[in-house]
Amino acid sequence: MVFRYPNGHPVVYDGAAKQKLQEKSKINFANRGMRFEEAINLSNEYYLNHKKTVVHKKPTPIQIVQVDYPRRSAAVIKEAYFKEASTTDYNGVYQGYYLDFEAKETKNKTSFPFKNFHRHQVQHMKNCLEQDGVCFVLLWFSTLERCFFLDSQTLIDHFENKNGKKSLPLSIIEKDGIEIFPEIAPRIPYLKAVDQFLCQTKEKL
Amino acid sequence: MVFRYPNGHPVVYDGAAKQKLQEKSKINFANRGMRFEEAINLSNEYYLNHKKTVVHKKPTPIQIVQVDYPRRSAAVIKEAYFKEASTTDYNGVYQGYYLDFEAKETKNKTSFPFKNFHRHQVQHMKNCLEQDGVCFVLLWFSTLERCFFLDSQTLIDHFENKNGKKSLPLSIIEKDGIEIFPEIAPRIPYLKAVDQFLCQTKEKL
Repeated sequence: MVFRYPNGHPVVYDGAAKQKLQEKSKINFANRGMRFEEAINLSNEYYLNHKKTVVHKKPTPIQIVQVDYPRRSAAVIKEAYFKEASTTDYNGVYQGYYLDFEAKETKNKTSFPFKNFHRHQVQHMKNCLEQDGVCFVLLWFSTLERCFFLDSQTLIDHFENKNGKKSLPLSIIEKDGIEIFPEIAPRIPYLKAVDQFLCQTKEKL
Repeated sequence: MVFRYPNGHPVVYDGAAKQKLQEKSKINFANRGMRFEEAINLSNEYYLNHKKTVVHKKPTPIQIVQVDYPRRSAAVIKEAYFKEASTTDYNGVYQGYYLDFEAKETKNKTSFPFKNFHRHQVQHMKNCLEQDGVCFVLLWFSTLERCFFLDSQTLIDHFENKNGKKSLPLSIIEKDGIEIFPEIAPRIPYLKAVDQFLCQTKEKL
């Protein structure tokens, strides 16, 4: 039996493709960026299933150059290139709030390198803040196994007043950010930090 | 003088690029789906530049199977497949509101076929509505050259009570939706309809 999507396309994501994907993730074991991202994706899935928030990772933007149609139903992309993303990786909606965030990771133990934040992502965060979005970054210190929520306005303030400094000290992140303690499910319970941040913001008003 | 975007990239949307775009739209003349989508993308660009809203089209999700690295800097995707999207195409933030929408098109003159709305997209709209997002569809009757805003709750109500009917009559869309009249810039001024919808929603409360 062939399973089909609502539009009639057959489901091809099984068997061989799945095995290939698993092999790929084994190869990428050293790539800890993928694993933090995975933990966040699982958390989003948990939150979605429990009707807590609707947040999805945006697909990687790709420039397609050549597509083959060996069969009527299946298009195979034969030549394509990765494009630079013009936004952050995650966005969605939480109790009427627009959430927008980026997940970043470092092996450093004492500070978070600014080079992780691209200029266009900072610009996107500014644009979203102007529209009263709730924007932040999730920072993962993989060696320390510690995770922090840092709101984008605070990040931008430090980023634009860095005076030649190449990274943001952990001590500042501990002071200005909100620590997130990983759990079984959701793995990265970032909504707790969002709640705390919204509470603090309301108190300030 | 070279004009630059805030991210430092030079503005290429003029002269040659514009001509290319026009040629492309000539080639794609038959593919009316692309042209409506293009008009919305241009409207989003206009709104972003004028700091009215931050809305982006999500990239097409692609399952990558094989990547070559002919040079250190350039990765070439050699085998990949289109995946089914699990969300709508557009989302973003507008004055603190989460916006989420899908753009659909028909050549029909008297009704909009329900088959344009996939089950997973309807589910995504429901999820977003539960989180108080502002969800809607933009409907384009290409033969009539008429565009409508229809909020997702109204669409879902009709979709789930369709009683075997295969399409939504234009007369209902005229009554329950908000007509959008195309302009020079932005091409599809959908924020006017969003404002009107938000106003109506507040009056109901």
